[in-house]
Amino acid sequence: MSQRFELTILGSGSASPTSKRNPSSQVLNIGDKLYLIDCGEGTQVALRKNKIKFQRIEHIFISHLHGDHYLGMQGLLSTFSLLGRSKDLHIYSPKGLKEICELQFKISRSYPTFFIHYHEVKTSEKSSILETDQLNVYAFPLKHRIETYGYLFKEKKKPLHINGPVAKAYNIPHYAFEKLKQGEDFIDPETNEQIANKELTLAAGKSYSYAYCSDTAYLPELSEIVKNVDLLYHETTFMEKDVKLAKKTHHSTCKEAAMIAKGANAGKLLMGHYSARYPDLDLMKEECRSIFPESYLSHDGDIIKV
Amino acid sequence: MSQRFELTILGSGSASPTSKRNPSSQVLNIGDKLYLIDCGEGTQVALRKNKIKFQRIEHIFISHLHGDHYLGMQGLLSTFSLLGRSKDLHIYSPKGLKEICELQFKISRSYPTFFIHYHEVKTSEKSSILETDQLNVYAFPLKHRIETYGYLFKEKKKPLHINGPVAKAYNIPHYAFEKLKQGEDFIDPETNEQIANKELTLAAGKSYSYAYCSDTAYLPELSEIVKNVDLLYHETTFMEKDVKLAKKTHHSTCKEAAMIAKGANAGKLLMGHYSARYPDLDLMKEECRSIFPESYLSHDGDIIKV
Repeated sequence: MSQRFELTILGSGSASPTSKRNPSSQVLNIGDKLYLIDCGEGTQVALRKNKIKFQRIEHIFISHLHGDHYLGMQGLLSTFSLLGRSKDLHIYSPKGLKEICELQFKISRSYPTFFIHYHEVKTSEKSSILETDQLNVYAFPLKHRIETYGYLFKEKKKPLHINGPVAKAYNIPHYAFEKLKQGEDFIDPETNEQIANKELTLAAGKSYSYAYCSDTAYLPELSEIVKNVDLLYHETTFMEKDVKLAKKTHHSTCKEAAMIAKGANAGKLLMGHYSARYPDLDLMKEECRSIFPESYLSHDGDIIKV
Repeated sequence: MSQRFELTILGSGSASPTSKRNPSSQVLNIGDKLYLIDCGEGTQVALRKNKIKFQRIEHIFISHLHGDHYLGMQGLLSTFSLLGRSKDLHIYSPKGLKEICELQFKISRSYPTFFIHYHEVKTSEKSSILETDQLNVYAFPLKHRIETYGYLFKEKKKPLHINGPVAKAYNIPHYAFEKLKQGEDFIDPETNEQIANKELTLAAGKSYSYAYCSDTAYLPELSEIVKNVDLLYHETTFMEKDVKLAKKTHHSTCKEAAMIAKGANAGKLLMGHYSARYPDLDLMKEECRSIFPESYLSHDGDIIKV
């Protein structure tokens, strides 16, 4: 069975929270490891509502330091401490977040019970910022009013599956399985007989990828950066009829997001960060689908299984 | 008819928000002027849910700079700007809030569209911090782990009511009403005839008062400070069986809050800031009522008319 690769939308709105939409926040669950992406006001309550075991979060990625993308951080850190967290936390963000957090710890005289590694993201091109056993995470610059980064999460190549019945028939010892999963042939240490890997294994599970692009003006080169991504979140703050407003505020229209998705040959486009001016989001979805049919609205509480 | 004097509970919880309870925040409506008291994370959404016209808020009072009492501020200020606010805002708080807000404006390069007057509260005794046509506001020190203040809102003496039929019978000119309302007798400018004020007026409406005490260890002198207050909010974080924990964390028990209310001869005691350890708040209410029968639980969304 393939490991879990799913995204929960904690906040799909823009700018100001409403009773229906929190500002930006998502949690990516890859094989039960949790990656929090942006953390607008109300994120900790959204984590509770969605019954996410949030002490499992070890990595937080902040796209930029506009309030609707980070103001839930200080409260979340405080709750981690109240719950007695001792595990280290890694926070990836443009410069400034450490200063904001540390000032508030100092003034409230409430210091975290755990160690925070602040990783300052600063790059002019797609760069690896984290590598674990299971995945690579890349940051890449977006184009917004302040320094802003997108994040690409790419699962590593997964190990092959052992073909149980065949391995048993050949009487392959268990200690040899790890190397077989990595693609090596089997060589019997006593007889020196060689059995080809492809006889003993089945295809590995697919490795999935997810890219998060918020907030950004239309940036055609994004298609290359997130090429062939399985799931692409790209902000759709405006509709094309308001493209002037999009340009002015350094946001994207539905059409523009769909063009990025199409150019990237993405599996699916996930929309979000809607301006409050649009009462009917289905019109936004139609605008995207006219260019990229696999476009979907995101709503708070949605779970997208990749 | 008496003018409105009502309190809306935006957050009745402590420390960490849950899906049922926001951290501390309240809005006091006196004659349609709104005074926001504490501003935990999620306050702006709670204001929306309670359909409060929050651009009317001109004064915000922060008790202390623990996150559960102020972390909603930055988002609220941002929303004020997004909605195009131009009216000045006055914020009363212990030292530190200005630094926190200004740092975040700077880093997010998002400055408010209106002027903020930061009033640093610093006093060792009950002191007037604001006087308007309708009320006086006093700050007084509480006893907590960091510098913390309580706030007392006292309506000024209200004008007398004109006794319409009698005034008409005497043919009193309208221009004289204002002075009559202030208690002066009427002197006819032509005849010099004097009519006693009490003939022409009815008793003034009662002037109400509200005191907010959160967070604090048991502080007996509070009874004197809020003497005869109509409505007293006093935190009840713990039950008396956990008094050691209350002492350790500089919070109060239900019994202690009730003793303050009793000593103050308060009209009503409003409880809140409950520790998450108590599943049955009715037991907390009973503990208060055993000492001070007019004790009431507060819940998010409650409106208390004084």
